[in-house]
Amino acid sequence: MRFDHAGIATDDSDDLAALFETVFDASIVHEEEFDGMNVTFLDFGNGYFELLEPRDGGTIARYLDRNGSGIHHLALETDDIEAALGTAREAGIDLIDEESRGGAWGHEVAFLHPKSTGGVLIEFVEH
Amino acid sequence: MRFDHAGIATDDSDDLAALFETVFDASIVHEEEFDGMNVTFLDFGNGYFELLEPRDGGTIARYLDRNGSGIHHLALETDDIEAALGTAREAGIDLIDEESRGGAWGHEVAFLHPKSTGGVLIEFVEH
Repeated sequence: MRFDHAGIATDDSDDLAALFETVFDASIVHEEEFDGMNVTFLDFGNGYFELLEPRDGGTIARYLDRNGSGIHHLALETDDIEAALGTAREAGIDLIDEESRGGAWGHEVAFLHPKSTGGVLIEFVEH
Repeated sequence: MRFDHAGIATDDSDDLAALFETVFDASIVHEEEFDGMNVTFLDFGNGYFELLEPRDGGTIARYLDRNGSGIHHLALETDDIEAALGTAREAGIDLIDEESRGGAWGHEVAFLHPKSTGGVLIEFVEH
């Protein structure tokens, strides 16, 4: 697997993306509305930051209410997401998504339960 | 800048590293005791996870007490860390480290204050 992106929950993705462009020399490469969020990808050449700004409630809105803005998850890229989920299941990891589903940017995604992975919310991504 | 690593606070880096090796097909490429912590780097080919296990109090021990194990910071690689800190300062970002200092793996590092960067603790790294 390769590093794909770090997901960041924010209540102002435009401001944060502009700051990260300036200070980290990253480029906005993709923006969309997905699943009730404004989603913005910043490219570092070898991986992305994915800014997640809720527009209308949902998981990220609840996360912001509880934790405030910050790092939400880490995503790893795989060429075969169903095989990756099988390996995780065999290792005793609880899955949030038993099967992959459509994610942002047209990718297939699935999340592992952080209680099984040291408190780290991990997303598998297949492009 | 390029993505360098995600820092993960844990109270059992051996177990977590073994799990991540199995499930994420990552390799342990560096281990050391640094600044009162066991530090373990897992390589994904295009970036690392850095597992931080405190041995004797300190910042990460306090983080674990407050938050439990999980994602602690994101690190970006730069060829000129002092120039990067200058750019951050000019953008109005508060710095935890006004100048770079020696970090794990012999790298020069400096942290930005998360209150200035959307709640995300960012580390600059120069190899």
